[in-house]
Amino acid sequence: MRIGLCGVGNVGSALVELFRENRFEIDRRLVRSISLEQVACRSDSPECDLSGLSVTKDVFAITDNPALDVVVELIGGTDVAKSLVLQAMRNGKHVVTANKALIALHGAEIFSVAREMGVKIFYEASVAGGIPIIKALREGVAGNVINRIAGIVNGTSNYILSEMSGARGDQNFVAVLAEAQKLGYAEADPSFDVDGIDAAHKITILAMLGFGASVNFESVHVEGLSHISLDDLKLVDELGYCLKPLGIATKRCDQLSLRVHPCMVEKNNILSKIGGVTNAVLVDGDPVGEILLVGPGAGGPATASAVMSDLIDLSRGADLPNQGFLELRETSVYSIDELICSVYIRVDVKNQNGVMASVTGILEKNDIGIEAIIQKEVNERVARIAIVTSETKERIINESLSELSSLSAMVVPPQKIRIF
Amino acid sequence: MRIGLCGVGNVGSALVELFRENRFEIDRRLVRSISLEQVACRSDSPECDLSGLSVTKDVFAITDNPALDVVVELIGGTDVAKSLVLQAMRNGKHVVTANKALIALHGAEIFSVAREMGVKIFYEASVAGGIPIIKALREGVAGNVINRIAGIVNGTSNYILSEMSGARGDQNFVAVLAEAQKLGYAEADPSFDVDGIDAAHKITILAMLGFGASVNFESVHVEGLSHISLDDLKLVDELGYCLKPLGIATKRCDQLSLRVHPCMVEKNNILSKIGGVTNAVLVDGDPVGEILLVGPGAGGPATASAVMSDLIDLSRGADLPNQGFLELRETSVYSIDELICSVYIRVDVKNQNGVMASVTGILEKNDIGIEAIIQKEVNERVARIAIVTSETKERIINESLSELSSLSAMVVPPQKIRIF
Repeated sequence: MRIGLCGVGNVGSALVELFRENRFEIDRRLVRSISLEQVACRSDSPECDLSGLSVTKDVFAITDNPALDVVVELIGGTDVAKSLVLQAMRNGKHVVTANKALIALHGAEIFSVAREMGVKIFYEASVAGGIPIIKALREGVAGNVINRIAGIVNGTSNYILSEMSGARGDQNFVAVLAEAQKLGYAEADPSFDVDGIDAAHKITILAMLGFGASVNFESVHVEGLSHISLDDLKLVDELGYCLKPLGIATKRCDQLSLRVHPCMVEKNNILSKIGGVTNAVLVDGDPVGEILLVGPGAGGPATASAVMSDLIDLSRGADLPNQGFLELRETSVYSIDELICSVYIRVDVKNQNGVMASVTGILEKNDIGIEAIIQKEVNERVARIAIVTSETKERIINESLSELSSLSAMVVPPQKIRIF
Repeated sequence: MRIGLCGVGNVGSALVELFRENRFEIDRRLVRSISLEQVACRSDSPECDLSGLSVTKDVFAITDNPALDVVVELIGGTDVAKSLVLQAMRNGKHVVTANKALIALHGAEIFSVAREMGVKIFYEASVAGGIPIIKALREGVAGNVINRIAGIVNGTSNYILSEMSGARGDQNFVAVLAEAQKLGYAEADPSFDVDGIDAAHKITILAMLGFGASVNFESVHVEGLSHISLDDLKLVDELGYCLKPLGIATKRCDQLSLRVHPCMVEKNNILSKIGGVTNAVLVDGDPVGEILLVGPGAGGPATASAVMSDLIDLSRGADLPNQGFLELRETSVYSIDELICSVYIRVDVKNQNGVMASVTGILEKNDIGIEAIIQKEVNERVARIAIVTSETKERIINESLSELSSLSAMVVPPQKIRIF
């Protein structure tokens, strides 16, 4: 099986090195040999040693090379990458990609062309780096009905919330983000990560694989981290929770809920123990129950490991649908307003008689149960009340927050954090 | 693909039910249809509904039925099970089994017949129940050189140590075991689980898959749990560790170390958070780094999920070596005496002048560094000293323990627990 590689950045160069370093171990596993033949590299002097390889600057020289069986797309983005993936498939080549945005945004078109051309497209590296979660969902739990997938799938966000909640819990979002950038855990423009877009791409892909559903990326409800305060993190901790950046996909009566937001996880739930840049994905299936996969979600070497496992799989030639299912079904996604979950509500109110009764009265009127409550003094004139509600429809919660906002005693707008 | 099932116990009946319950979801994933045709069941009235299936009492009626393509072996044991697996393969049928003892003890012979006959034998359900760890090792990290595999692969043992270390930490091994038996977490004869044999079967299989090594089950060093005392667990906790029942396989200079024993894990290591009957397997590979898979290690439904994923994989017809590697290499296993690791040593000594100097003097003389030390009074006359050593060869540790034993101040023989 002859392979052409497009893109020799972080992941691409790790892949070239992996072919060289682990050649002996890889060959021991192969019924049909695989070889890296040609590389497209747009920069003049890449960081890695390309000796012995045919090198071109034109990615389409790879897609159009009749001697190649497989094209690996590692250039990223959705413009050129999409054209080159489609062109490679139209030329009868299989494709391996690490490009989550490409699959999340253009999966439907790409799978349809792959099907038409009778080629495969594998994308293990697109979600959670070195963790074989695509394989686990597509094959490992293939006999299950999947009910829920929940994951920490953005390392940058997990690092930031872990640091803000951790020993150095005196640094706010802005300070920790700056440090993450210095350490290389966050991009110069971090919005893609900290605003939840990256995680939304990944949960789109996981939902498709888990539910066999055609998922529209736009239907994912996305919230970032920047509004999370140290005050809230302290209360979250005191109430027995950790705050984690989760992507969550659930199925309820044949409808999906897809969302990315900071989410409170009970401290006795193992997801709460996944710190730093580590990723983790929880799959809840019937009959398997809950399984959790944990590992490095990014980085050249770990991601190259995932690309290599796809290449080895391709060489084994399984008769496996690209999306795990023969066909993805149109499945409606219900609005976040219809979500039913417990939430944390924090209000800062003037420290005056009857204010607690006003706050809890609004919740009671709306049939919202109170599971836990903490009241603290912020200063002589302001009290802070943190409440964990019973499971309630989001719309009712939001209406109650509006009512709370209009209380004359309210000092700042109330905060809401959903609970896993 | 027509399937015959041998054994309708806990897992077998869950598999029959899974075929019925999830039929629609399974069919959506299949390029080639699969059907359960015949069932061999030795009891007259099994717990599950076999209507619509051809039922026989003779497992060899299944292996010899020319209409079947695959035989699922779920009868357990290594006598009849081995004959039936070999016979099925000699009749040109693929085999799926959940039988860890069979693969651990007779893997070499079984794989050789499978290869000769050109059939496949899959055994996802043999290790860690519903966790797709076989698939992860065989395929998910196929591009990696594996350095270490470590797992909590026996739920009974994990339950017992978790309970002894937990809130109810006033119950000793015997009491917790009795409770586990009452709850159905431990067998009437628990020795297979609590003496480490079951975990040794599993680590044998994982080592074979991870290292591509032909592993002799007898070469696994095995220790059980029954010597673990509440006193030691309290000190382990105080020193910042949890005690976990681990199976560990490591590679050092092309030699393997294979062992099963209670092992101290630092509290900030996620393995320490895996409690109750849950299983978890950590794989350390190059370039992927560490990945961890967590989930239900036993139970009919979870195990049936693993069997079903094997069946679906078989129907997909990948050209995949049964052991992940084309050939397993003979690999020597080094003696536990040559193991290099940190250990916990606990000595109870007469509370007299100079006794601490005698104890630490013996370690110092043998070049054993001390990383941490705690001294406590057991009563007026006896002091307890707990020591965490630097990384030291096991043989040196054992020699030092002998020397410690011969001190006149020693009250009971010193205890040793290895550290992960």
